[in-house]
Amino acid sequence: MKIFYSENHRKHVPPFEVFDGGKRVPYLENPDRMDKILSALGKAEWAEFIAPSDFGLAPIRAAHDEDYLNFLATCWGEWINSDPNVAAAPQENAFLPATFALRRTTRKPTTLLGKGGYYIMDLSACIVEGTYRAALSSANCALSAAEFTSRSGQTAFALCRPPGHHAGKDYAGGYCFINNAAVAANWLSSKGKVALLDIDYHAGNGTQDIFYERADALTISIHGDPQFEYPHYIGFADEVGAGAGLGFHKNFPLPAGTTDAQYLSALDEALNMIRNFAPKYLILSAGMDTFAGDPLGSFKISRNGFSQIGKRISALNFPTVIVMEGGYANAALGENIVTLLEQFL
Amino acid sequence: MKIFYSENHRKHVPPFEVFDGGKRVPYLENPDRMDKILSALGKAEWAEFIAPSDFGLAPIRAAHDEDYLNFLATCWGEWINSDPNVAAAPQENAFLPATFALRRTTRKPTTLLGKGGYYIMDLSACIVEGTYRAALSSANCALSAAEFTSRSGQTAFALCRPPGHHAGKDYAGGYCFINNAAVAANWLSSKGKVALLDIDYHAGNGTQDIFYERADALTISIHGDPQFEYPHYIGFADEVGAGAGLGFHKNFPLPAGTTDAQYLSALDEALNMIRNFAPKYLILSAGMDTFAGDPLGSFKISRNGFSQIGKRISALNFPTVIVMEGGYANAALGENIVTLLEQFL
Repeated sequence: MKIFYSENHRKHVPPFEVFDGGKRVPYLENPDRMDKILSALGKAEWAEFIAPSDFGLAPIRAAHDEDYLNFLATCWGEWINSDPNVAAAPQENAFLPATFALRRTTRKPTTLLGKGGYYIMDLSACIVEGTYRAALSSANCALSAAEFTSRSGQTAFALCRPPGHHAGKDYAGGYCFINNAAVAANWLSSKGKVALLDIDYHAGNGTQDIFYERADALTISIHGDPQFEYPHYIGFADEVGAGAGLGFHKNFPLPAGTTDAQYLSALDEALNMIRNFAPKYLILSAGMDTFAGDPLGSFKISRNGFSQIGKRISALNFPTVIVMEGGYANAALGENIVTLLEQFL
Repeated sequence: MKIFYSENHRKHVPPFEVFDGGKRVPYLENPDRMDKILSALGKAEWAEFIAPSDFGLAPIRAAHDEDYLNFLATCWGEWINSDPNVAAAPQENAFLPATFALRRTTRKPTTLLGKGGYYIMDLSACIVEGTYRAALSSANCALSAAEFTSRSGQTAFALCRPPGHHAGKDYAGGYCFINNAAVAANWLSSKGKVALLDIDYHAGNGTQDIFYERADALTISIHGDPQFEYPHYIGFADEVGAGAGLGFHKNFPLPAGTTDAQYLSALDEALNMIRNFAPKYLILSAGMDTFAGDPLGSFKISRNGFSQIGKRISALNFPTVIVMEGGYANAALGENIVTLLEQFL
């Protein structure tokens, strides 16, 4: 299996994130995640690593707001130039806003602090010097995998970091800056209908946001109910698309403690919807944080569960682009993703 | 002059706030502010302190969303019951959300973390055990002053802490939880037209939010331009009310470095609008953070400037309720507010 991967993710290592209650904690979405996956894939004979091609900005702009992308590109530079304390210790700092463009806000701000709280929805989307470059490379991994899959008809794996599925049209959140899966899905959609299935533990709010009014892509997310889980404001069962996209989005919010059997039951329903939609391509947003014991999850999916999940998705038999999303139980992360990928060989 | 003041503000002492870049800093809106004001007023023969009456929840609910008030009332208890780390060290903790209900959000959440980022717009509106009780007492100071003024026709001072003018219908922000001035203005409005003038350095976004569609109250704010200053998303010159309230709101966004002369020129324009509106009562949201050297300000208002400002507002000759808002140059704060108040004797 072709695995598209770039070392540029190592340029994005925020020194902390901030949890509820204003607590600084180590950044959970860290390069160690990739090291564990690389190590597990290194033992797999079938894994063939390929550096991504550079697709330029056009396919990224096609999924994201241009002012938002400009913010990502310029945020760090503006900050370090305006704050001597940051300039004196750049390694110890990460940009986060303190004031947010709450619900009724419509006006686009022009200053750094205004843009910060307009384009960032939480305190885990920390921006450091290398964030934008890492995010571009991550999107290029997804695009390269999509390009390979569209050309060969074969399944490919985009080993993306930072992940993407929480990034909306014009906002970052949940460790995500550019929505790799959505960028790839949008790029593929010019070649035929695309279904996007998100099996990350957290609702794929960004993907939902980007495709919500489109009928040429079916987007489905199976996740911890936002009633109790991040991202709190989106990912509910009654959100089913709007306008032309009505009926082309589906959320499966599941309870804490969801087991393999419960999960597979929702998955089967999702796979039926995809079969009926009859896409030319499938994109799989593959977060592994449904795993029992993930520090950010509450599900109880086992190693064998991932094998079952992979087997059933693979049985759809669509050319599939598997895109790495979250997963924070690092010790098990490599074996978990390998288990999933093996079902597609 | 009657000064309505409650010691209950001392129940609201968050151990920190969080600035841009995820930095914890000491809570700037602290009881020392009141101590400095009390000390200065203690030397003034004309100052007569009175404890506020309890007006109950009805007049507060008349200005704020009920679910929002319920959130303020229950937040701390919900948090401490759900997080053993908080329960173990309540004094070291303050509730702040980490995920925010950004722009397009409409659904009201029901869980603590969801409500947190739905009802709080920034990282300075920290909630501790005593916050709600302090905020209620602060609102009662404003209501008691309004009641006295409506009964006597005399000017009164509500020495409110926490301040209120950044609190909107259904959100906290900028150290503010209940909008004391707006609650008092709304209560007074049943007795006659009210003008509300906000001279705090920061835009009175909460007051604007609450009265934006009403014609029975003229609201005016003179402040640092949100183009470069908190609250970033509201307080612009082209925001002039809506619906029935069109033309009944006015913002004067002023540049950094604004001097006494520049300020007084905007103030004169505001006072002309108030004269033309011919209210029965005036509410003055008196923030002192326009003072030269205020750590949260950029204006250059002098002690003599406050004397001029007070003199011109007092010359309107309306029964006036002066409501304390911000001001963080604590060493000068007492003398500054006394200088302002003296113009109303």
